[in-house]
Amino acid sequence: MVNETQHGCNASSRSDGSSSGSESSKDNSRCSTPVLDADRHERLREKMRRRQDAGDKWFSLEFFPPRTANAAVNLISRFDRMGAGGPLFIDVTWHPAGDPGSDKETSSMIIAYTAVNYCGLETILHMTCCNQTKDDITGHLQKAKRLGLKNIMALRGDPAGEEWEEEVDGFNYAVDLVKHVRNEFDDYFDICVAGYPKGHPEAESYEADLRHLKEKVCAGADFIITQLFFRPETFLKFMKDCQAIGITCPIIPGIFPIQGYHSLRQLVKLSKLEVPQEIKDVIEPIKDNDAAIRNYGVELAVSMCRELLDSGMVHGLHFYTLNREVATTEVLKRLGMWNEDPRRPLPWAVSAHPKRRVEDVRPIFWASRPKSYIYRTQEWDDFPNGRWGNSSSPAFGELKDYYLFYLKSKSPREELLKMWGEELTSEESVFEVFTCYITGEPNKNGYKVTCMPWNDDPLATETNLLKDQLEKVNRRGILTINSQPNINGKPSTDPIVGWGPSGGYVFQKAYLEFFTSSEIVTALLKVLKKYELRVNYHIVNVKGQNITNAPDLQPNAVTWGIFPGREIIQPTVVDPVSFLSWKDEAFALWIEQWAKLYEEESPSRMIIQYIHDNYYLVNLVDNDFPLENCLWQVVEDTFELLN
Amino acid sequence: MVNETQHGCNASSRSDGSSSGSESSKDNSRCSTPVLDADRHERLREKMRRRQDAGDKWFSLEFFPPRTANAAVNLISRFDRMGAGGPLFIDVTWHPAGDPGSDKETSSMIIAYTAVNYCGLETILHMTCCNQTKDDITGHLQKAKRLGLKNIMALRGDPAGEEWEEEVDGFNYAVDLVKHVRNEFDDYFDICVAGYPKGHPEAESYEADLRHLKEKVCAGADFIITQLFFRPETFLKFMKDCQAIGITCPIIPGIFPIQGYHSLRQLVKLSKLEVPQEIKDVIEPIKDNDAAIRNYGVELAVSMCRELLDSGMVHGLHFYTLNREVATTEVLKRLGMWNEDPRRPLPWAVSAHPKRRVEDVRPIFWASRPKSYIYRTQEWDDFPNGRWGNSSSPAFGELKDYYLFYLKSKSPREELLKMWGEELTSEESVFEVFTCYITGEPNKNGYKVTCMPWNDDPLATETNLLKDQLEKVNRRGILTINSQPNINGKPSTDPIVGWGPSGGYVFQKAYLEFFTSSEIVTALLKVLKKYELRVNYHIVNVKGQNITNAPDLQPNAVTWGIFPGREIIQPTVVDPVSFLSWKDEAFALWIEQWAKLYEEESPSRMIIQYIHDNYYLVNLVDNDFPLENCLWQVVEDTFELLN
Repeated sequence: MVNETQHGCNASSRSDGSSSGSESSKDNSRCSTPVLDADRHERLREKMRRRQDAGDKWFSLEFFPPRTANAAVNLISRFDRMGAGGPLFIDVTWHPAGDPGSDKETSSMIIAYTAVNYCGLETILHMTCCNQTKDDITGHLQKAKRLGLKNIMALRGDPAGEEWEEEVDGFNYAVDLVKHVRNEFDDYFDICVAGYPKGHPEAESYEADLRHLKEKVCAGADFIITQLFFRPETFLKFMKDCQAIGITCPIIPGIFPIQGYHSLRQLVKLSKLEVPQEIKDVIEPIKDNDAAIRNYGVELAVSMCRELLDSGMVHGLHFYTLNREVATTEVLKRLGMWNEDPRRPLPWAVSAHPKRRVEDVRPIFWASRPKSYIYRTQEWDDFPNGRWGNSSSPAFGELKDYYLFYLKSKSPREELLKMWGEELTSEESVFEVFTCYITGEPNKNGYKVTCMPWNDDPLATETNLLKDQLEKVNRRGILTINSQPNINGKPSTDPIVGWGPSGGYVFQKAYLEFFTSSEIVTALLKVLKKYELRVNYHIVNVKGQNITNAPDLQPNAVTWGIFPGREIIQPTVVDPVSFLSWKDEAFALWIEQWAKLYEEESPSRMIIQYIHDNYYLVNLVDNDFPLENCLWQVVEDTFELLN
Repeated sequence: MVNETQHGCNASSRSDGSSSGSESSKDNSRCSTPVLDADRHERLREKMRRRQDAGDKWFSLEFFPPRTANAAVNLISRFDRMGAGGPLFIDVTWHPAGDPGSDKETSSMIIAYTAVNYCGLETILHMTCCNQTKDDITGHLQKAKRLGLKNIMALRGDPAGEEWEEEVDGFNYAVDLVKHVRNEFDDYFDICVAGYPKGHPEAESYEADLRHLKEKVCAGADFIITQLFFRPETFLKFMKDCQAIGITCPIIPGIFPIQGYHSLRQLVKLSKLEVPQEIKDVIEPIKDNDAAIRNYGVELAVSMCRELLDSGMVHGLHFYTLNREVATTEVLKRLGMWNEDPRRPLPWAVSAHPKRRVEDVRPIFWASRPKSYIYRTQEWDDFPNGRWGNSSSPAFGELKDYYLFYLKSKSPREELLKMWGEELTSEESVFEVFTCYITGEPNKNGYKVTCMPWNDDPLATETNLLKDQLEKVNRRGILTINSQPNINGKPSTDPIVGWGPSGGYVFQKAYLEFFTSSEIVTALLKVLKKYELRVNYHIVNVKGQNITNAPDLQPNAVTWGIFPGREIIQPTVVDPVSFLSWKDEAFALWIEQWAKLYEEESPSRMIIQYIHDNYYLVNLVDNDFPLENCLWQVVEDTFELLN
């Protein structure tokens, strides 16, 4: 029994589960992914153990579900930004009053699902059990499993009434939930439980509370996250006391950077903790100065974290973010734990859904819309790895609701109008918008264009390499939406184009994708004859009329990497078949995101509608990656032919 | 009905089968191979059509099964040599007296199977039907299908007795066999039938024979190969007559280059043909001068072939080789149809078994023993493509009989003794043999070492690039058996290292594999510490003691290619798991091929036995392919450390 030594329990119904038993057998395909990124194949508790063994410090972030759909969109972009700092996991709290297990875009369940699937974050979903039926709880757990969630924080939760009484055979304590999860789901979930450095406010005593904690661990919890505390010695004493009674699983201190007077008061009230006098003495005089309090909170948190880490007993820090970024990010940066340059395992952001852990090939088309790609492929039973394969890929889901909350633009309508034009007068005014997006210069009304329907973020650093050429061609009506330069063997550690393990080399074929008029397409096709053996093209209009020279509709690998001791990884392909699915989405974005900003029948709307109906979507690949990219010459030749 | 227009038949039970129906659905795996080499995915009749459509001339070669096992070994090396000239297919005749459907190494069935599986040749197996039961014939066809044969030449065969009578409901004519194949095996086989430019000798008339031929085509034959003839006009008239009665399938002239007086007489007797007087007039006077007759035969064949090809009606030529190479090769070279530099679709010779048509990854270890690799993996249900994948590969078959006829050395014992030493006096005399093999210089007894137990052929052109370094290290006891240089993006058309479609680039990581003493291994391991991040190594002795730094036992891609409009191909890997299967074979070859040349207990045998028992098999990969190969430096450093 590994548990015996691991968690200090004498008996346990748990299997060891150092790998996820029945699931791993399914991966015995001969095409299984090389372990480029061990993270994607490990359970949270294994990651924790590995980081600890490697003497590697880590952090995690706690969020609560938002109240409104708009707040959800914001929270998700916060996940993306804070995810870039490299948390080991995030967790999402459970608010019984907010219908936490529902399909609402603001529910705990859906927020956690979004974090895992769309943001690629290892995520723990909180779950409380008191005042709930066994069936409800099992239903929630089944749903969590179905949605790809793998970790549960098992909590009792606050009783509904003032006078709470135990229910016979009911879920009265967190330990009942832990047991239930293990009984019903065996070793599927990693389970976290809460620890109270000062003892639970309702416990008979500190010692009794420690015994309850040990019961939770022995029932199958994998690690403990503590309630917040104000002094490092509080945690260190608690940790020693836990060890003394034989709790040996990881115990992670919950860190609460004080961010404001009111939030502190509220939290203290909820958690029934007392703020030490030395902190009150500092805060009271500056209670109306938010910046001052936050600075003090950061200072305090940094010094407490340093002391914890220096003790040698603490390997990870858990932050109560209150859904805010600044203070926590600041603390982590000061501690040197914020990952400034996270190594990308693949050139695109991977999803953390267990179904997708072997996925390592995607079509290039969704490069700027990875969440849309994940959404449209969520029903796939398995994901390509090693090769994209031939045209037999399963169908892409329809993008029926363009305003699906996690896919919709982060910017409100008014902002979009400022960026993309309150009024369009001609196709050229559309060219202007594209050009401003590329150059980063303000448009004629003085607004910067920071996003486009096809790109929700400003230009990628990599695309910046192509800026001058992109500006030139957009001005003339080659409306680019995706591109990459050719790369002939740069180190995998290159800060701009690198990805994968170090010691490798990455390669790219030059790629260019744009909308353009049929007049330009006619000239382009003549020019492409000269490049027949070098450039592959796909040219399609909204009706699906498709012109290509791709051999047998085979996919073309446009990004690949060679690494020490590994098979070749080719994470990005131009796939002629999925291009037609992308085409529908790319054309629809003209209407859904842009045309609909304007009144029906308005000239502005009619211009966008005209482009939608008449332009072509073109992609070009220069296969000769060791030579200078010829795609600019292709475009140059096309303009020349037109003149 | 495609047949209507294709073959001129009014009714047919055949399906079109332009692709092999039920089979293709099995290939709908997401990992299916990119069509690097259309040949591997097409049926013979499709290849024929494609070559014809492309205006591409082709040839094919006919062989008969050998009488002895030694002759079989020779015939198979002839297949390899003549296969290099690029025949569209070969065919193997059916000799009812020679137990043609048996498992004997000399049977028609097994020779055809060997040509397909081990030599990678598209092959037609002849089959005759008269005097045979339906069950016998079905049994033969089932076996042919099981062995990977896809093409049948349906013949009547010569009746057993002098006075032959039709059997009611029996197989009396080739057309009965054609119908039977289509009835029982649907469209699985491509079927060829024989045409007689002068009419079948037993036919009532030339016209009647043409009608029989049309019946065979209408019953389901895909193309026709003719009996030999002596004048081009004979064939051209026959072809026009066929077309006139509505036979539209390909008709391939059978070419018989006269190679000697006796073989001509025998063939003429068998085929009941008359040799034209103008030929007799030339041959009779020189009938004892073989060389003169052969020269005349080549002349005659070349001029006849030219006339046929120039007619525009002939796209392919079928050669009756009589199992000889010189005359046919000469004719083909004179015609410019011998493929001097065949494009390699992959860096190793592919097998033509339909099961293996997606195979495009193999471990490097069997590079010099491809037939052994095919033999040891023949039971696999499917073959890796795209990726080798992880350690879950199916088991390799045991090499139980080292003298398995198609795997045994081409050289007899006496020759091997001359090359490898009648008597060995020390380990150094073994080093000397390896060194002579590398340099190509004669050994101390004046014999060139043209093969080794691990390499049945002289050094590959590619290995020649490494000759100087190889010589140096072999002299000092690093006994190399496999190696490749690093390559950083050479054109895929490179005559030495190129493979795959043109317009691509090929890459290699440097690889070195050798046997060496434990003393050298000890030093090597110290040296390798300096190269830990750059060089992957696997070091194993006969007992399986295994030392490696490969991450998670993952395969390492050591050959790959990037092609226009295609996914990445990585045909060669160093796989830690299959290395252990290869190890058994590599060590066993010391004993089976070398030690056993000597008397038991003889000093020579004991020296080889000592090496077998005590040496290590080592492989090294330099992962940093863009830099100069560091493996020579590794070996140099090792020797330095030892001094």
